Amino acid sequence: MAVNLSEPSALWPVAGVRLGTAEAAIKKPGRKDLLVIELAPGSRVAGVFTQNAFAAAPVRLCRERLSRTAAQRALLVNAGNANAATGRGGLDDARATTAALAAALGCAPEEVLPFSTGVIGQRLPVQRIGEAIPRAVAALAPDAWLAAARAIMTTDTVPKGASRRVRTAQGEVTVTGIAKGVGMIEPHMATMLAFVATDARLTPAAADAALRAAVDDSFNCVTVDSDTSTNDACVLCATAKVGTHDIERGDADYHIVLDAIRAVCIELAHAVVRDGEGATRFITVEVGGAASTAEARQVAYAIANSPLVKTAMFAGDANWGRIVMAIGKAGVDGLDPARVGVKLDEVILLENGEPHPDYREERGAAVVAKPEFTIGVDLGRGDARARIWTCDFSYDYVKINAEYRT
Amino acid sequence: MAVNLSEPSALWPVAGVRLGTAEAAIKKPGRKDLLVIELAPGSRVAGVFTQNAFAAAPVRLCRERLSRTAAQRALLVNAGNANAATGRGGLDDARATTAALAAALGCAPEEVLPFSTGVIGQRLPVQRIGEAIPRAVAALAPDAWLAAARAIMTTDTVPKGASRRVRTAQGEVTVTGIAKGVGMIEPHMATMLAFVATDARLTPAAADAALRAAVDDSFNCVTVDSDTSTNDACVLCATAKVGTHDIERGDADYHIVLDAIRAVCIELAHAVVRDGEGATRFITVEVGGAASTAEARQVAYAIANSPLVKTAMFAGDANWGRIVMAIGKAGVDGLDPARVGVKLDEVILLENGEPHPDYREERGAAVVAKPEFTIGVDLGRGDARARIWTCDFSYDYVKINAEYRT
Repeated sequence: MAVNLSEPSALWPVAGVRLGTAEAAIKKPGRKDLLVIELAPGSRVAGVFTQNAFAAAPVRLCRERLSRTAAQRALLVNAGNANAATGRGGLDDARATTAALAAALGCAPEEVLPFSTGVIGQRLPVQRIGEAIPRAVAALAPDAWLAAARAIMTTDTVPKGASRRVRTAQGEVTVTGIAKGVGMIEPHMATMLAFVATDARLTPAAADAALRAAVDDSFNCVTVDSDTSTNDACVLCATAKVGTHDIERGDADYHIVLDAIRAVCIELAHAVVRDGEGATRFITVEVGGAASTAEARQVAYAIANSPLVKTAMFAGDANWGRIVMAIGKAGVDGLDPARVGVKLDEVILLENGEPHPDYREERGAAVVAKPEFTIGVDLGRGDARARIWTCDFSYDYVKINAEYRT
Repeated sequence: MAVNLSEPSALWPVAGVRLGTAEAAIKKPGRKDLLVIELAPGSRVAGVFTQNAFAAAPVRLCRERLSRTAAQRALLVNAGNANAATGRGGLDDARATTAALAAALGCAPEEVLPFSTGVIGQRLPVQRIGEAIPRAVAALAPDAWLAAARAIMTTDTVPKGASRRVRTAQGEVTVTGIAKGVGMIEPHMATMLAFVATDARLTPAAADAALRAAVDDSFNCVTVDSDTSTNDACVLCATAKVGTHDIERGDADYHIVLDAIRAVCIELAHAVVRDGEGATRFITVEVGGAASTAEARQVAYAIANSPLVKTAMFAGDANWGRIVMAIGKAGVDGLDPARVGVKLDEVILLENGEPHPDYREERGAAVVAKPEFTIGVDLGRGDARARIWTCDFSYDYVKINAEYRT
């Protein structure tokens, strides 16, 4: 059902990164649901995490460990169980499983970062994970990115990955990333889980800055259902394998590498929306003429998260009254309806608050019948703009989420 | 499909109020879709309206006319067309149709208030409405409340009405109200359309105060889908037929009448949720232990509007992880997860941030299998509380809204 999304064809290996998967039967047996990402010594890791107050145990442990040092040696990821709302026991479980991986790799437990995704409120099967870790380690290989993308899927229907290669002053740099997540998606800081690696010699500060800049333009611009996960995490691992001197924020190479990281993050963020639970449409919402970027985003999210707009788009119904309703409910102080314009792609529906005389129902219907289109809004009160991406709301969204645990 | 909701059995007439309906074929022929409510001379009308910036033409005209005087003589209501986002032409249409009713009743056009509900962005069929008005006026009768409730339905499956009789110092007072609306419901000021009448001698100021107090505890506490209509309106008509002296705000009788108005409004607001589009559950969300009422409402709405919570409830799945997720995403500054408690009716799921040791899946499932239950949350940081009402999110919500215009 994903909208114009197929398996990534080429995910280039990143020097200094090896990946291995194994079956730990975390939710149920029959699939590889455990992923180990090993990083070469000297790697620098940056991360951004959910703003949900009920941040999961692995998120809390990641924050704690990354606040001490960016020098990390491995990521341990499981699907099928989020280890969220599990109280103190959940933190113990995250410590125990990362310690088991540290022992297998011969590094310190504090050099392993845990990530979990799946059902909330259930304890991790620590013993089964411990038994699977040696098998995942034995499988470590530099070209296992696609298998890794598969191992972290939950209700995803397509594994999500993206790669870029760019030329820097110190040689060719690779950026490869994978992501998962199709529901409980309105990240605000990062999506469900995304792992991006590069062999560029970004300093820890430069890696952190590049990650935040890239995430702001990608994962922080998508919404599937307005719900913010307890486990959102996006990390950037820079293995520093290319070249001999560090790249600082502001260097010419910083911008080259940042552009590649941003491109990978946008491709992954789009993949999350294209595979949004039950999605049949990939919709860009562009709001301009706003007094501030915050205001433009507020209106864009009001449209993108409106159940009535989303169900109309599912039906291929150019019910633009619902778009107008969503603009109006967004809470923009002093908004003058008589200055507002609305377009579907290039078809003008509303201009200066008046229905456009040339608009015909068939023209709007032709736009929303397509799998991809843009809802454009002009608020007529300034120059600020924002663009976000979302999907429609279908029977299958309800079906997937009504049946998720059964 | 409505949850424990049947047609109102007894809607008492209110002295000074007559109602008449007629077919104007506004969206399509075959039903009575036009309602006239005539008020006796001396009636006082108060209204609250949508906060949507794209307030519909009838809402704007109501505001203008009520700002001049509470002495109104009639309400003109149509279903099938919202007369919203219709620009200046829409205002002209509302003026023309109310003028036609004023002519038929022999009052001034400024003494008629217009109300519309239905599709957004299409012009009203002014001529057909003008032709139907004399038939509605000819049908005026004091006991036509149920027929009136039927005439204003759109995707409603059950007509909504409520009545109370209370004893005041000046004699028995009747309060009767009708409402419509099952989608685009998170009113913030009033619901889709609700008309409440009483024969009490409330002054205009007392009527306004009573209406605002009653709406705050009723229509402003419900959400079906988080979308705020362009046409929300709730009016209170006090015909002043009982007794000889006015009731001011603060009088003993004011509180007696207010209690009856509030009871009618709560019953109508519950009816809106029980008949929420596709609803199979009527859910009360109670949030306590908050630092402020605003904070308690913020968390209650985050739960009530979460698509993931709503789809789990539809499935009868006690997926309380989603409730925890919604509490965490609500944006309460400094919320300490280790103090939060969650209950389903009397079944404790989470206590002080830890899963309750006695909780068993079957116990939660037994609660959410019922058509009515309460989600209880304790934030553990104060004494403020809030209670709101909502419904679940089903296949039929998508079906109803994907097919609404076709």
